[in-house]
Amino acid sequence: MKLLRFGPMGSEKPGLLDADGQIRDLSGVIADITPDTLSPAGLAKLAALEPTSLPLVDGSPRYGVPVKNAGKFIAIGLNYADHAAESGMPIPKEPIVFTKAITSLCGPNDTVVIPKGSVKSDWEVELGIVIGTKAQYVDEASALDHVAGYCVINDVSEREWQIERGGSWDKGKGCDTFGPTGPWLVTKDEVGDVQSLDMWLDVNGKRMQTGTTKTMIFGAATLVAYVSQFMTLLPGDIITTGTPPGVGMGMKPEPVFLKPGDVMTLGIEKLGEQRQDVVAWSPT
Amino acid sequence: MKLLRFGPMGSEKPGLLDADGQIRDLSGVIADITPDTLSPAGLAKLAALEPTSLPLVDGSPRYGVPVKNAGKFIAIGLNYADHAAESGMPIPKEPIVFTKAITSLCGPNDTVVIPKGSVKSDWEVELGIVIGTKAQYVDEASALDHVAGYCVINDVSEREWQIERGGSWDKGKGCDTFGPTGPWLVTKDEVGDVQSLDMWLDVNGKRMQTGTTKTMIFGAATLVAYVSQFMTLLPGDIITTGTPPGVGMGMKPEPVFLKPGDVMTLGIEKLGEQRQDVVAWSPT
Repeated sequence: MKLLRFGPMGSEKPGLLDADGQIRDLSGVIADITPDTLSPAGLAKLAALEPTSLPLVDGSPRYGVPVKNAGKFIAIGLNYADHAAESGMPIPKEPIVFTKAITSLCGPNDTVVIPKGSVKSDWEVELGIVIGTKAQYVDEASALDHVAGYCVINDVSEREWQIERGGSWDKGKGCDTFGPTGPWLVTKDEVGDVQSLDMWLDVNGKRMQTGTTKTMIFGAATLVAYVSQFMTLLPGDIITTGTPPGVGMGMKPEPVFLKPGDVMTLGIEKLGEQRQDVVAWSPT
Repeated sequence: MKLLRFGPMGSEKPGLLDADGQIRDLSGVIADITPDTLSPAGLAKLAALEPTSLPLVDGSPRYGVPVKNAGKFIAIGLNYADHAAESGMPIPKEPIVFTKAITSLCGPNDTVVIPKGSVKSDWEVELGIVIGTKAQYVDEASALDHVAGYCVINDVSEREWQIERGGSWDKGKGCDTFGPTGPWLVTKDEVGDVQSLDMWLDVNGKRMQTGTTKTMIFGAATLVAYVSQFMTLLPGDIITTGTPPGVGMGMKPEPVFLKPGDVMTLGIEKLGEQRQDVVAWSPT
């Protein structure tokens, strides 16, 4: 099942994608896709629907973040060995955990705003995990039982603020629009082996990142189990799991960073694609 | 005005403290104290009430987190020069920003649970700032216009997980019950000069921390302005602003950490006091 939210920012409706790739309106069935929707019972209720019985949505509406009211937006650093190398950082012995501000979440095709004063904004295609049931001190064997599904995330990052300004990475990771998420939450039954998904990211049509979740240092089950030792994960929480090589910071002979007018396109096998126009910040 | 939420966890009601220190029930006026309540208009509406006209609450109910549905729980590290010294860390050139998981928030007198496997849980009395209106790229001169009020926070910290496990500090800062907050949100008009408040923390009746917000390296206005350059602050967001000397990690000749049965009491001038029993984690 591919769950989604469509419509203008702040007034999205719930929907799902049918077998023909068309959006079906779920608002007659549920008010929105919230953390409660992601329980096994909530998902089973939606899975029992016949998609073609739901109203067809005309046109090409905007996609929102596929779950409303996510509580936490946790991120994992340097989780692909090649990316750690290009970043000039050692391969971590255990997962690096940081936090993206919840206000950085945005729709998968929304405009990405280069923050005021930023000169080192960068891209990162990542596999996102969406929690379906409370996970506290869970072990690796049962960790994926707590997962509702997966999505594409662009973990947009300001490298100067992340690395050169002292303290944690959180300063460079949580800017508004730095977390395009979606287009869909793809339920795990439809994804199959989450550790075998190809992923890619282009800037202005040029391939920058090519990877596969096969080369993650710590896989999805390990990460859910690990993070749940430090904090209780709740339905709707999102974990973005690190990026493969090819970020702008690692380009040779010189780093390349985002500039206004750039277009990022990215995708993960089975999880869909995103497209973001990059703009400069301006007061609105 | 001292705003508060009282009652069992998950079903708190809104209230305020009257001039005699008694709780008055606000549930006939507002459904709860939410981010919307903290707007200037929302606060003015409550300030116009005559407290003695509100129902008196009998007994000594539990206090909850004084604002429901806070979105972000941002924290500042090493913000008192003496504390940086006792931690063996350099005085930061600019604020150190990290994140406490939103699920770490709890009431001011709720039990603090030492997480499973923790051997280095520690205390930190801190001034908490609660945002009242959206703050994005605000300057220091106007920063406090975006603040609704202040509260006491115990920034409970697991030092091994914070410092010795790699990555950001977030692993050791966001455990469940690691963010006792309250008892009240004291509106800024009632606080006066926020940079002149005495603060203290005892463990088992022994004074461990004595400080004053006078010695903060970066004051409240600076911090709100600073954080707003990296992420948009929204009503209900909480910033906890660092701790004065006297944490367990800094004790001589040996560090001292929390153990089951300990009692933490702490307070800040004008903002009230907290009391937490410390227990070991157990499956419930």
